[in-house]
Amino acid sequence: MKAGRIHAYHEPIHIDDINEPRIEKDTDVIVKIGGAGVCRTDLHIIEGIWKDALGNPPLPYTIGHENAGWIEAVGSGITHLKKGDPVILHPLMSCGLCPACRAGRDMYCTQGHFPGLDGTDGGYAEYLKTSVRSVIPLAPGTDPVPLAPFADAGITAYHAVKKLVPLTAPGTTVAVIGIGGLGHFAVQILRALTPATVIAIDTQSQRLDFATEIGAHHAVLAGSDGGVGGVKRIAPNGVDIVIDFVGEHQTPAAGVNMLAKGGTYSVVGYGGEVQVPTLEFVNREINIVGNLVGTYNELAELMELNRQGKVVISAQQFPLADAPQVMEMLDRGEIKGRAILIP
Amino acid sequence: MKAGRIHAYHEPIHIDDINEPRIEKDTDVIVKIGGAGVCRTDLHIIEGIWKDALGNPPLPYTIGHENAGWIEAVGSGITHLKKGDPVILHPLMSCGLCPACRAGRDMYCTQGHFPGLDGTDGGYAEYLKTSVRSVIPLAPGTDPVPLAPFADAGITAYHAVKKLVPLTAPGTTVAVIGIGGLGHFAVQILRALTPATVIAIDTQSQRLDFATEIGAHHAVLAGSDGGVGGVKRIAPNGVDIVIDFVGEHQTPAAGVNMLAKGGTYSVVGYGGEVQVPTLEFVNREINIVGNLVGTYNELAELMELNRQGKVVISAQQFPLADAPQVMEMLDRGEIKGRAILIP
Amino acid sequence: MKAGRIHAYHEPIHIDDINEPRIEKDTDVIVKIGGAGVCRTDLHIIEGIWKDALGNPPLPYTIGHENAGWIEAVGSGITHLKKGDPVILHPLMSCGLCPACRAGRDMYCTQGHFPGLDGTDGGYAEYLKTSVRSVIPLAPGTDPVPLAPFADAGITAYHAVKKLVPLTAPGTTVAVIGIGGLGHFAVQILRALTPATVIAIDTQSQRLDFATEIGAHHAVLAGSDGGVGGVKRIAPNGVDIVIDFVGEHQTPAAGVNMLAKGGTYSVVGYGGEVQVPTLEFVNREINIVGNLVGTYNELAELMELNRQGKVVISAQQFPLADAPQVMEMLDRGEIKGRAILIP
Amino acid sequence: MKAGRIHAYHEPIHIDDINEPRIEKDTDVIVKIGGAGVCRTDLHIIEGIWKDALGNPPLPYTIGHENAGWIEAVGSGITHLKKGDPVILHPLMSCGLCPACRAGRDMYCTQGHFPGLDGTDGGYAEYLKTSVRSVIPLAPGTDPVPLAPFADAGITAYHAVKKLVPLTAPGTTVAVIGIGGLGHFAVQILRALTPATVIAIDTQSQRLDFATEIGAHHAVLAGSDGGVGGVKRIAPNGVDIVIDFVGEHQTPAAGVNMLAKGGTYSVVGYGGEVQVPTLEFVNREINIVGNLVGTYNELAELMELNRQGKVVISAQQFPLADAPQVMEMLDRGEIKGRAILIP
Repeated sequence: MKAGRIHAYHEPIHIDDINEPRIEKDTDVIVKIGGAGVCRTDLHIIEGIWKDALGNPPLPYTIGHENAGWIEAVGSGITHLKKGDPVILHPLMSCGLCPACRAGRDMYCTQGHFPGLDGTDGGYAEYLKTSVRSVIPLAPGTDPVPLAPFADAGITAYHAVKKLVPLTAPGTTVAVIGIGGLGHFAVQILRALTPATVIAIDTQSQRLDFATEIGAHHAVLAGSDGGVGGVKRIAPNGVDIVIDFVGEHQTPAAGVNMLAKGGTYSVVGYGGEVQVPTLEFVNREINIVGNLVGTYNELAELMELNRQGKVVISAQQFPLADAPQVMEMLDRGEIKGRAILIP
Repeated sequence: MKAGRIHAYHEPIHIDDINEPRIEKDTDVIVKIGGAGVCRTDLHIIEGIWKDALGNPPLPYTIGHENAGWIEAVGSGITHLKKGDPVILHPLMSCGLCPACRAGRDMYCTQGHFPGLDGTDGGYAEYLKTSVRSVIPLAPGTDPVPLAPFADAGITAYHAVKKLVPLTAPGTTVAVIGIGGLGHFAVQILRALTPATVIAIDTQSQRLDFATEIGAHHAVLAGSDGGVGGVKRIAPNGVDIVIDFVGEHQTPAAGVNMLAKGGTYSVVGYGGEVQVPTLEFVNREINIVGNLVGTYNELAELMELNRQGKVVISAQQFPLADAPQVMEMLDRGEIKGRAILIP
Repeated sequence: MKAGRIHAYHEPIHIDDINEPRIEKDTDVIVKIGGAGVCRTDLHIIEGIWKDALGNPPLPYTIGHENAGWIEAVGSGITHLKKGDPVILHPLMSCGLCPACRAGRDMYCTQGHFPGLDGTDGGYAEYLKTSVRSVIPLAPGTDPVPLAPFADAGITAYHAVKKLVPLTAPGTTVAVIGIGGLGHFAVQILRALTPATVIAIDTQSQRLDFATEIGAHHAVLAGSDGGVGGVKRIAPNGVDIVIDFVGEHQTPAAGVNMLAKGGTYSVVGYGGEVQVPTLEFVNREINIVGNLVGTYNELAELMELNRQGKVVISAQQFPLADAPQVMEMLDRGEIKGRAILIP
Repeated sequence: MKAGRIHAYHEPIHIDDINEPRIEKDTDVIVKIGGAGVCRTDLHIIEGIWKDALGNPPLPYTIGHENAGWIEAVGSGITHLKKGDPVILHPLMSCGLCPACRAGRDMYCTQGHFPGLDGTDGGYAEYLKTSVRSVIPLAPGTDPVPLAPFADAGITAYHAVKKLVPLTAPGTTVAVIGIGGLGHFAVQILRALTPATVIAIDTQSQRLDFATEIGAHHAVLAGSDGGVGGVKRIAPNGVDIVIDFVGEHQTPAAGVNMLAKGGTYSVVGYGGEVQVPTLEFVNREINIVGNLVGTYNELAELMELNRQGKVVISAQQFPLADAPQVMEMLDRGEIKGRAILIP
């Protein structure tokens, strides 16, 4: 089968012809990929940013961690899934036995695998082998193809927002920095889960128009001050919450600066650095929250929101064979919303 | 009366002779100071660090924000306090009407005054005028003098610990950096409020001995790595929580480095800088929590812990007249525990 | 001035002519009543249900605890309110000093007064004297008259819903029993604060039509089983949450029966009895939550929701002089939504 | 092998000779029973109380749901357990895939089995077959025999207490009704997890002496008023929390009566009925919390507390062959602490 694989860091992926995966364990599941989302993390993998954090995995392997499709085959121990069922996959193959799994915190699983990232083959391919614990069944008749970006971009935005729900009430202000693949989910999820007032911040005005269409109450064009001035005109004492989907260049500094006393800066995007005097944490009692993907149940909840029509995807579809080119387009900022590869 | 006042930044305070305060409003309370704690923040005031954050208050004014004593006089609207009652004072004179006050978050009061910090006269004096909302009555017969350091050092440590209680369970590990005035409270409060395993970190071994005496399970001498190595020998995957009562030099970096996945670094001390790549917040999902003093009810809860014998103070007493010298001793690290000035 | 007063239990109130209230304390506020809501609790007061719970207050006194209007006069210590400002009143005059007040839990104030209930004169009158702590300023130019029912019916519904927010996620099911004065607020507040699926239950089909108009996803006509069968058709394993605004006859039993495992039955209406075997609490791990009005900040948050257009009132206006007749209409179930008395 | 089995409701169990269990699935685990706790629920099973709730399981089957021992054999998919390892068993065999399991709420598993209760063979036997998901490894060298009662009595008490932790602070009062098998755990767990003041209530003074030995601050002998008078002498406004390990006769009424405003009555024991006017839930804003065993992680946390020496067991050991007699002794109130059967 065709598969998009990393052979060397700092080089484009290759489309290889490799063997299809086979069921080996009782808990194995083979999914026929319907769509695989293209994520900025895929670019960061090629750049080698994740190499050490993921234990320097042997190359080549198939990338792609945003996967949806149909059940192709299941291990002998599995009775609730059958060939043809539409499914979306939690990005992590968690063990189900460690304390983190037992608490529902899948992303901290100490024995898990992360297809498409840690050397385990991912979803830029025709078929993917995963574990039954990754599989979220979709409602019968659902087309899984356009849903692929929910599997990582969606779940991560959902996870970030859900952790902040206890901090919101009518009148709470939330700034969302970066209305791209993840940010456009966050705006909608904030509107669905909270009564907060949402302020979208981006450097591109057409993205801000889109943010307003999907529910943002205010839009601020980030100029040289990263949007701090615009935000302060709307919320003179600063905002209660910032969710930063960029996380590099000036956004961490701007995000922290635009916070009100007791405010919370939530980091999702990465690449840059947070640099804040400890006095600021004391005098303004601000907080910083990190975010690492979401849980299985969070993805299931997000699929329920999508089923209710409350969170829609902005995406473009491309053939799997064009994966290397699509990754370049993403790098150049030419993808609107999210790109999906179709095998 | 005698009062220790700041006349110019970067100069020692003077002991002046000024008029005693008088009741003016129905809600005024005059307290005869029994003891006033000497806090590192008093040094930072002289250094001018707080000047801008506090709106550049006119000089001179009386410093001292850790005050306990006896009721001397009360405004006409006050019936539950009478002359001679022992009391401790919440450091903030909050308004009681703004949304923060209405939610019990006294430290965010937008109309409040902060005696000893913002130009309002503080407690390095024989008498102090405050508002009824600052006064916490002590049990009849209590000697308020040795309790003064609870009013700021104690409440701040209590506030920091209490916010972390929901993150603790049997097996949770908490590192406390800096076993000085605040840190020695934190060790005891952690033991009283949580089942966590407490690791004390300091650069002085006698402080570590003291930490062990008052309840720390482990002690780590901070060497060139800020204690990271020692902590990792006890908790190989890192600790769940770090509370940093130093907040400068290498402690913010060490504190963040010794965290486990999903861990929380809580900042109380200040003077330095937090500098962390955004990737760390994503890959390890770590959090940073700021702390600004505590609430009225938190101080009342802390006094209840003290009454039960669960939190004791290590302090030395000095005459008010020696205040300038005591501040120098604190700056040189010559005070054991906390210093208290006696008028 | 005219005032509707209770002179004896089990008798209609009288419209008396009494003296206008006067400012006596620095913190007093006199409000010119714009509208006073008529509440089922007013009927219960006449029935004597609250007599003992409220310490057997001396009669006569003016009833009415849902009040909005304009500032008429303020005590000397008040600077943020002036004559003519539109305001709504928190139903309780809280002390601001007890531990409950200090925690923002106004309704547990141990030194407070409850105008219209505990013998303190209420709002079925031209003017009402209250304390500055009860006053919530409305946006300039707001007409306070139609907002009166928010002051108790609204805040209580808001309080009940807000406590349940942490139990909701996409897919959560909530049944609201009784779509009257409080229930119609609850449906809207659930939609504004949570992603839950809302099931309205009532014995009158026109009330169910109204519930659907204002946001309920499903409507169930309560028949002889109190709606249990209808709810189970929508949520076969039972609902996660029930909020019961009736609280008498069969609703407590039906409410508990329609719960899923781990579910929560929240009681707002009263008059009946909860009767449940302890085995049910163990085998199904169900919970019961009580509700006593809401906090000052909750009323402020609700006014913000109203300002945003997310919660509207269904009410009919009547002259104050007709108060005795309006109370009879309410008792006979002839009031649509909520009745408001206009002095 | 020998096994204590129920053959008919309302008759004593028989000690039968049956086949040993065998590994069938990859995830099966066979445990050599070291000790099996005798629980009041075992009596209730015989009485038929659980029959309908558990789907009328076919008889006979082996009872016993508090099990600890050593690994005897494991399925082919299990690598972290080997013969001879000391273990304690979570009472439920959860599926690991349903939403409840995915959230760490094992006790709500919709596909699980409950050995000793629902017809699945339990631990009154020489060997028990369970699933890998039930097994909690103990520290090497631990003697599992005396720990058996933690598996249900312990975990249930821990679960009940842990849910209440967020409601506690210094000064909070908690009454524990019934200092038997579960109650004596609760007293110790309250002391380990919270700063609350603990009041033990029982009808037997020697049990109260024991409660005081293991950490209760106060002891109240329950007379004709169920202890309400004694509790009110200690906490005049009532207690903040009641945990009722009896749940029958007068304890539900007494438990609710001794609550302060805003208080919480937590039900663990069963057999009786809660009967409370809805007005009480409104006027006093009280809450009732149900409890159904605990989670896997809660049992692991409890074993950590035991390892730290903070929670000890009071138990008597008997040979498995005497199981019918031991159950009669329990019914007559002749067991001190908890009984353990040794095969």
